[in-house]
Amino acid sequence: MSEDYQALSSATLGARLGGVDALTSRLGPDASSWSVREVGDGNLNLVFIVEGSEGAAVVKQALPYVRLVGESWPLPLTRAFFEYHALTRQAARDPGRVPEIYHYDEAQALIVMEYLTPHIILRHQMMAGRRVASLGRTIGAFCARTAFRGSDLSMPARDKKADVALFSGNVELCDITENLVFTEPYFDAEMNRHTSPQLDAVVAELRQDEQLKIAAQHFKRAFTARAETMCHGDLHTGSIMVTDEAARVIDPEFAFYGPMGFDIGMLLGNYLMAYLAMPGHLADNDARTAYQDWLLEVAVDTWTAFADNFAELWQTERTGVLYPKTLYEDQGHYLASDAALREVLGEIFADALGFAGIEMHRRILGLAHIAEFDTIEDADMRAPLEEAALRLGRTLVLSRNGYAGIDQVVAAARAAGRGGKP
Amino acid sequence: MSEDYQALSSATLGARLGGVDALTSRLGPDASSWSVREVGDGNLNLVFIVEGSEGAAVVKQALPYVRLVGESWPLPLTRAFFEYHALTRQAARDPGRVPEIYHYDEAQALIVMEYLTPHIILRHQMMAGRRVASLGRTIGAFCARTAFRGSDLSMPARDKKADVALFSGNVELCDITENLVFTEPYFDAEMNRHTSPQLDAVVAELRQDEQLKIAAQHFKRAFTARAETMCHGDLHTGSIMVTDEAARVIDPEFAFYGPMGFDIGMLLGNYLMAYLAMPGHLADNDARTAYQDWLLEVAVDTWTAFADNFAELWQTERTGVLYPKTLYEDQGHYLASDAALREVLGEIFADALGFAGIEMHRRILGLAHIAEFDTIEDADMRAPLEEAALRLGRTLVLSRNGYAGIDQVVAAARAAGRGGKP
Repeated sequence: MSEDYQALSSATLGARLGGVDALTSRLGPDASSWSVREVGDGNLNLVFIVEGSEGAAVVKQALPYVRLVGESWPLPLTRAFFEYHALTRQAARDPGRVPEIYHYDEAQALIVMEYLTPHIILRHQMMAGRRVASLGRTIGAFCARTAFRGSDLSMPARDKKADVALFSGNVELCDITENLVFTEPYFDAEMNRHTSPQLDAVVAELRQDEQLKIAAQHFKRAFTARAETMCHGDLHTGSIMVTDEAARVIDPEFAFYGPMGFDIGMLLGNYLMAYLAMPGHLADNDARTAYQDWLLEVAVDTWTAFADNFAELWQTERTGVLYPKTLYEDQGHYLASDAALREVLGEIFADALGFAGIEMHRRILGLAHIAEFDTIEDADMRAPLEEAALRLGRTLVLSRNGYAGIDQVVAAARAAGRGGKP
Repeated sequence: MSEDYQALSSATLGARLGGVDALTSRLGPDASSWSVREVGDGNLNLVFIVEGSEGAAVVKQALPYVRLVGESWPLPLTRAFFEYHALTRQAARDPGRVPEIYHYDEAQALIVMEYLTPHIILRHQMMAGRRVASLGRTIGAFCARTAFRGSDLSMPARDKKADVALFSGNVELCDITENLVFTEPYFDAEMNRHTSPQLDAVVAELRQDEQLKIAAQHFKRAFTARAETMCHGDLHTGSIMVTDEAARVIDPEFAFYGPMGFDIGMLLGNYLMAYLAMPGHLADNDARTAYQDWLLEVAVDTWTAFADNFAELWQTERTGVLYPKTLYEDQGHYLASDAALREVLGEIFADALGFAGIEMHRRILGLAHIAEFDTIEDADMRAPLEEAALRLGRTLVLSRNGYAGIDQVVAAARAAGRGGKP
């Protein structure tokens, strides 16, 4: 399939992809009998589930524009290229955690990959009050392994620099983050929206907060300049698919070289918003309290698993140019190696809290909101929950260096949830 | 000239480059009458001064190995490619400060450029106790302009990301810095040397200093990951050519995307070493004291000019994606813009001091030493001067966040020069 790019449809998919071995070998050879459903509910792409007599697959194809907005907002097809390269690297760095790739067609901006079933989006699982076994440990390990193994702590310098160069091409997707996450929420930008008039006062207060607006741009500078590791780039609870037992990570088209705390920070922000939004989803007090406890446990587990896995890799796979054993262990300086690790983890933690807070702001003030809040139809019920998240987000950003550990962050979230000062 | 790479010699240069318009138009058409001198005294390349009846030029050609060491240490010809691209960018960002390029031949790894005369290397000017008018202001401005205009503060994000990708290819030159600057000085590596036995005790002390070894690797991490701006990459006093009135910057083949404080930090380290080495070069007390005062004045002027120029560009050319006026000035938040600037400058300053201290260590403990110390033949005279520099370097690295300004750094240097605690 090397013709010019053309968007697929449910009607044309069988005819166009019927000759792709990676599909016929899994689904069965008769493409005309395949069942094709377009299920893309994200903001950007076409996603088809294709089922045949022998199996199923997902076909994801980029569109030359932002699906959510339409052709007026062009977006290059190369995002499929970056997603493909991110998926192959994530698969190598944390085997089994991302969908297996069956086929990639660069010209058609198309990836054929494993159909995850009966998985649903984690965000929906959470709104339904359903747990996922070992969620925090699974995803914390994913974040640590991809962070460590994509960095100068592990990779040969030449390979890491080549990947920095490669992912530097993902300009337009980074541009979305640069604008929509770090800048537009902090002033009255055209595409913003928020629950109004209920939040008008707190929104004005945040946008007058000079320290907050400075910190947000410091983090934007970290986003654009700190090429520490290959980040997923969009790791919220809509980019994780789960069953009650398992979790997988999808959709890394925003992949870029950035700060080690970026992915886990965004994710923590989404956990905390899920926690604060719960009164809009579980009416029963006891059930809600228990589920909220679990959500905070997930936050704790995620960070703890990140730190544990990162520390293990530090001991066992520190083969890159940074903090070499030649300089520490080989000189008998084991304590120096541990102290360096603690300092690096401390920086990642503070960064993660900053990114978490900013993520919480942009999901309430910016263009792209989250279902946890948006599906609460009663604005008078929604607004105080959102306000708690906004205030917690500010505290995380401004006090990011003041937390002794994840438990103190959880305590701040609980205080915010009670309507108190986070 | 598109044949396979071949190293030039004084004997072959005229015949091989006699057809290059950029040379004939400046030197005169009869290449056989050109006078050619090989003058490369650096560590890496061939450098020829070519003079004809009508003018002169410099021809710089990379060798496929490190000239200082020989063919046993291969080094790719592509460093001429990176030098060429760095020179064109520096020329645009601080016009007139780097040599004009007349001709570039990628296959021959060769740049024909302006012959700077009667300039000499700043390091030699300083060892001779001669001043350069406005040196600090000139070079401080160069550092600020290249730092600012090569960053996301100024460049369109797409162009900056493309340059990050381009300079990511300068792997082998970065590898030299990664090893020789940040790592090898801090353990007993094979290529190291130091004044022995006089410095053995202090060298052992530094190599046992776990906080120092951790900090050095934090800075190495900054070097490999913080793609803030295009750095010169090797801005010591051997990369600046001067007359008594003027200064020009040469030799950016180590160019890479790195921290904004890297170039000015390396340079400050070299000023401070020149200051501390002076007892080995000027015997007359009054003359020496006066000249040392001037050297510290240069350090102050360099940082002050950096900060002044950076602040001016912040006000007038902040057109990149970072700290946009939309978010500050356009909202009436002028103080926030100034506060953000002060925080950014504070970070650059602390980084610069860290890089300065590390540079001071590697020039005394590592492979590549500096003439200021090496030409002091009496080891008993040299050693205490080197020791003062080593101790000052450590203080700069470990206390980098504790200095209120450049004046305090100068005071620490004076204390070190008196043999006291820096």
